[in-house]
Amino acid sequence: MRLRLTPREDSYYELFADSANNLVTASRLLVEIISDDSDRESLAEKMRACEHAGDERTHAIMNRLNESFITPFDREDIYRLASNLDDVMDFMEAAADLIVLYQIDHLPKEVVRQVEVLERAAELTADAMPRLRSMQHLNEYWIEINRLENQADQIYRRLLAKLFSGEFDTLTVMKMREVIEQLEAAADAFEHVANTIESIAVKES
Amino acid sequence: MRLRLTPREDSYYELFADSANNLVTASRLLVEIISDDSDRESLAEKMRACEHAGDERTHAIMNRLNESFITPFDREDIYRLASNLDDVMDFMEAAADLIVLYQIDHLPKEVVRQVEVLERAAELTADAMPRLRSMQHLNEYWIEINRLENQADQIYRRLLAKLFSGEFDTLTVMKMREVIEQLEAAADAFEHVANTIESIAVKES
Amino acid sequence: MRLRLTPREDSYYELFADSANNLVTASRLLVEIISDDSDRESLAEKMRACEHAGDERTHAIMNRLNESFITPFDREDIYRLASNLDDVMDFMEAAADLIVLYQIDHLPKEVVRQVEVLERAAELTADAMPRLRSMQHLNEYWIEINRLENQADQIYRRLLAKLFSGEFDTLTVMKMREVIEQLEAAADAFEHVANTIESIAVKES
Repeated sequence: MRLRLTPREDSYYELFADSANNLVTASRLLVEIISDDSDRESLAEKMRACEHAGDERTHAIMNRLNESFITPFDREDIYRLASNLDDVMDFMEAAADLIVLYQIDHLPKEVVRQVEVLERAAELTADAMPRLRSMQHLNEYWIEINRLENQADQIYRRLLAKLFSGEFDTLTVMKMREVIEQLEAAADAFEHVANTIESIAVKES
Repeated sequence: MRLRLTPREDSYYELFADSANNLVTASRLLVEIISDDSDRESLAEKMRACEHAGDERTHAIMNRLNESFITPFDREDIYRLASNLDDVMDFMEAAADLIVLYQIDHLPKEVVRQVEVLERAAELTADAMPRLRSMQHLNEYWIEINRLENQADQIYRRLLAKLFSGEFDTLTVMKMREVIEQLEAAADAFEHVANTIESIAVKES
Repeated sequence: MRLRLTPREDSYYELFADSANNLVTASRLLVEIISDDSDRESLAEKMRACEHAGDERTHAIMNRLNESFITPFDREDIYRLASNLDDVMDFMEAAADLIVLYQIDHLPKEVVRQVEVLERAAELTADAMPRLRSMQHLNEYWIEINRLENQADQIYRRLLAKLFSGEFDTLTVMKMREVIEQLEAAADAFEHVANTIESIAVKES
């Protein structure tokens, strides 16, 4: 039996849901940034604001942990989940920053697919957060995140093969490789979030 | 004193041993794939089947965890060990896939040494799994895996130096770098498996 | 209330402090190695000795864990902290080894800033270790390590942009990229040490 939690403890769920919703915002900024005619400087600025908002949520979770006697699940798991969500944001922000920094004018269309996978993963993660409360119906979330991560892998590898096909000059290849690597790391990081949630569910089961 | 476990719980050990034996198979496929006159397409296909078999074992372990009240060691450690073994497979499969995808005809002979280290690490890991039951005689396994990982590092760094010597054209360098990086990640992942087992033994000691 | 620990258990703190002080030594060797007129071969040799000394401390911690019934905090956290400290050393040693191996004569001046951040992080980490005993006054350490890691990120990204500016030939770019990547990984690894300490403090609070 799961005890009813007090309002104060409830707010972990809200903070996690906030963090995940923030990732949805960031993934949509990425979608805009990679489109050819976007104002990248200003979008990258918005992305930094988004990362900053994420950091504040992470700190709010950590502060609450330091003040709480009772937590809805193990303290170190709350800590790990907050860190995992933070990692996703960092990789998405890094990709946006590098696109601006390298002044990459045009990205291969497969990058659009990479970013669409991230947007979908962010939405699924945000959807799953309220279900942490009951630990029910999380199975479809893991399965779908794993499927998306496999898809991201396939897109990433095909993108690398395209980069190395001889179509682009060397410096362009190197710059684009750094960007798509950050995007791939973001997809992996979404899987780590899902793995942490799975391992929490395993403990609580 | 360690309690005698029921047959049902015993099967964790069997599933882990199966997973590790599957890594031995995968490492031998890698040995074949990197030889100059191999049928790479069909070997990469076998590698994918191998990865799929690994995924099934991982899911079998996770399902059993969800159904079991009693586990031979901490649930999260079982979870982590299964994930670590899965990671090794993913890196080996990625290396095989990239070799085919990039149509790399010839690999430097040092890659043979990289893959031999992986084969040896896979064999040692498979040998160690039955000893999880007693947690005895695992010291030599850790020491040897650590030695192999150091050796893999040395081979990897010398391979990079060779790639960057001016002997190869830029695109070939970039393609081979991706492949050897996956192989290096597989060697690191074997060390993570060993670290997890060491940390389980530390807890149980 | 925290129980007074026996002298025997105290020595974990000393071993961690030793490990961290060893990282200070290693970071100062890096400062020397990247200066243009240094004797790199002999400094890389000293770095290997430093890494070896680090390995011995790691093993001393692991052996003590295997022999102790009582530990000042969770066994797996002691294990993880020792592994994290070991990781930092490995990345710093790898950077030094690659500089010698690739015979890189001159490094961009931003690499000096990367290494200065590592030196500062090492000093902060060494300063924080004695405070593990009381778990007090660790907040400023986390905040400062996080600030340094953000700074390291900025330096790293600007360094990549410089490498990809067209100023250097392709092989030089590739070699320098590997080196600065190891240095960036060392900065990340210092943050992992801080995260582990933060998660220990969260548990103990």
